[in-house]
Amino acid sequence: MFFNLQEEEKKMWQDNIRKVTPYTPGEQPKDKDVIKLNTNESPYPPSPMVQEVVRSVENNRNRLYPDPEAAVLTDAIAKYYNVDSNQVFVGVGSDDVIGMSFLTFFNSEKPILFPDITYSFYDVWADLFKIKYEMKPLNEKFEIVKEDYLVENGGIIFPNPNAPTAVEMQLDDIEYIIKNNRDSVVIIDEAYADFGDVSVLGLVNKYENLLVVRTYSKSRALAGMRIGYAIGSKTLISALKAVKFSYNSYTMNYVSICAGAAAINDDKYFKEIVSKVINTREKAKDTLKKLGFFFTDSKTNFLFATHKSVPAEEIFEELKKRKIYVRYFNKPRINNYLRITIGTDEEMEKLYEALKEIVK
Amino acid sequence: MFFNLQEEEKKMWQDNIRKVTPYTPGEQPKDKDVIKLNTNESPYPPSPMVQEVVRSVENNRNRLYPDPEAAVLTDAIAKYYNVDSNQVFVGVGSDDVIGMSFLTFFNSEKPILFPDITYSFYDVWADLFKIKYEMKPLNEKFEIVKEDYLVENGGIIFPNPNAPTAVEMQLDDIEYIIKNNRDSVVIIDEAYADFGDVSVLGLVNKYENLLVVRTYSKSRALAGMRIGYAIGSKTLISALKAVKFSYNSYTMNYVSICAGAAAINDDKYFKEIVSKVINTREKAKDTLKKLGFFFTDSKTNFLFATHKSVPAEEIFEELKKRKIYVRYFNKPRINNYLRITIGTDEEMEKLYEALKEIVK
Repeated sequence: MFFNLQEEEKKMWQDNIRKVTPYTPGEQPKDKDVIKLNTNESPYPPSPMVQEVVRSVENNRNRLYPDPEAAVLTDAIAKYYNVDSNQVFVGVGSDDVIGMSFLTFFNSEKPILFPDITYSFYDVWADLFKIKYEMKPLNEKFEIVKEDYLVENGGIIFPNPNAPTAVEMQLDDIEYIIKNNRDSVVIIDEAYADFGDVSVLGLVNKYENLLVVRTYSKSRALAGMRIGYAIGSKTLISALKAVKFSYNSYTMNYVSICAGAAAINDDKYFKEIVSKVINTREKAKDTLKKLGFFFTDSKTNFLFATHKSVPAEEIFEELKKRKIYVRYFNKPRINNYLRITIGTDEEMEKLYEALKEIVK
Repeated sequence: MFFNLQEEEKKMWQDNIRKVTPYTPGEQPKDKDVIKLNTNESPYPPSPMVQEVVRSVENNRNRLYPDPEAAVLTDAIAKYYNVDSNQVFVGVGSDDVIGMSFLTFFNSEKPILFPDITYSFYDVWADLFKIKYEMKPLNEKFEIVKEDYLVENGGIIFPNPNAPTAVEMQLDDIEYIIKNNRDSVVIIDEAYADFGDVSVLGLVNKYENLLVVRTYSKSRALAGMRIGYAIGSKTLISALKAVKFSYNSYTMNYVSICAGAAAINDDKYFKEIVSKVINTREKAKDTLKKLGFFFTDSKTNFLFATHKSVPAEEIFEELKKRKIYVRYFNKPRINNYLRITIGTDEEMEKLYEALKEIVK
């Protein structure tokens, strides 16, 4: 054994490297021919106003640090939702905003609660920040059971509509959870809410402990810019800002601050692309039903579907061979489902053609 | 007491909000007349190639998530420094890169070591991630004492040149520390190294446990874009990537990836603006000496100066009245010093005029 001592000593610093479970994000293929229905991006470009503002950024401005408060963006979001600017917090995508929220609000000894089938980063952030958690199983219809959230807890988070299930919870049911959890911060992740019928944004001035998180990556077609935001009471937002500024003041770059403001100001364009996605989604439901698929009643920009006879994994692989990428999660309860992003009508036609071949 | 119970109950969720020490970043005044020598930005704009690439970004590309590996940027940096692409890690400013490095490498029960006077975020990140630390005092000349770093530790980090002292450590002395710490990860934060004479980049293939961190915010005039990077062994870089991807895959936006590659490819422009800053700095040393200032032999883009008779805080306030912003830290040992960023020659002339009035 001893002859190898030096070799072993050399590696001692490696013992202190953090052990992590690697995460595989949805593929970002370089091949331009691929039909990309795997990461819930918008099939339409961002508002032309975004292009205009990006092109007009003065090069000399980039030598300076961005405004740490991102006031131009924060003010635009506040105006759009008719809340005060100090009720808005912005970050580098909603992942950044939610991660920061975990760090800021979930510091109890009691476990935080979220569904067993939900956004895959909640348990990752909880582990990262050493936050205890309990996962509450969705029912057979993939619905959140509101009564499960009446137990003692250190905080609550779930998306509405939920992902990857695409199921939307009704406003009364969410308010029931918030009303019965006045001692915890309740975070509703509304990443997909623009494609649905329900939002709790109207409740932020009623419940001081409610935080709503949103993203520019789906409905606003700006996944490439990394912009997310949270809306809540002044108390929640000032706590988020204090934590953020205490350890990393400058995160959103100048270009994204300007682009984010431009995008939210172009409401006409936004409504247009969102309604196109919704129309395509409803047509997709009809077509997939005829092809023998079952799915939840999606209120998002994707379908969560299973086929009556062909295994999901097989469909996933066959579609990939045909250069159509969708998402498959090899996880308990959902390993016979596909998450299919709604593309343009042309992309969806190609999907249907391919599916006809595969499930025939 | 009891009549107030409901009020108190309502606030219980606030008990779980993280308590932090607020940090005040250097002011970003909106007034364009201000001479801004307070946050160590470049007085010159970024390369014109940056403007070109920002303007040429296809709007439709922004609807897609950015490449999580940021390969275009990583490859450009690797090529520039003649290392492999898998020896480069990029992030949203060097704060992001260093924070991620703390999380990845500093997981020992032994304390990490850094100087008592140094970049103000090291202890913040250590507290945030519950990492033990010991601060080693600089000597009377504000130099790092290499022998202090030979004790058992869970990691070492310091900037070279150090900030806000501007003092550069010699290559042999740094290598002495690395050589005697083969069981720890040693991070050298070279935020200002482009303005000095020393870099440990040449040692990354000799010491597998050495990580060098750099930023685009100073010498590359891109503080507004938020770009930082680390160079080290493949083992270190793959560990950083694993941790990053495990909890936040997409952070650098598409525009900044392109801008960063463009900036590093324009080496001629980069060398030109760096040498202009160095020339102005050396002239500033002559002038400030004549005005009765003492300072370290700066190898950065700022001076760390004290006056023989007028208190630093007074000079700071007087300069501010004249719309010249510099930085003053009200901290032990350095509370009679000013950190003065090197501006353009014109800006520095105005500084000298103001100082002549103030210290006369």
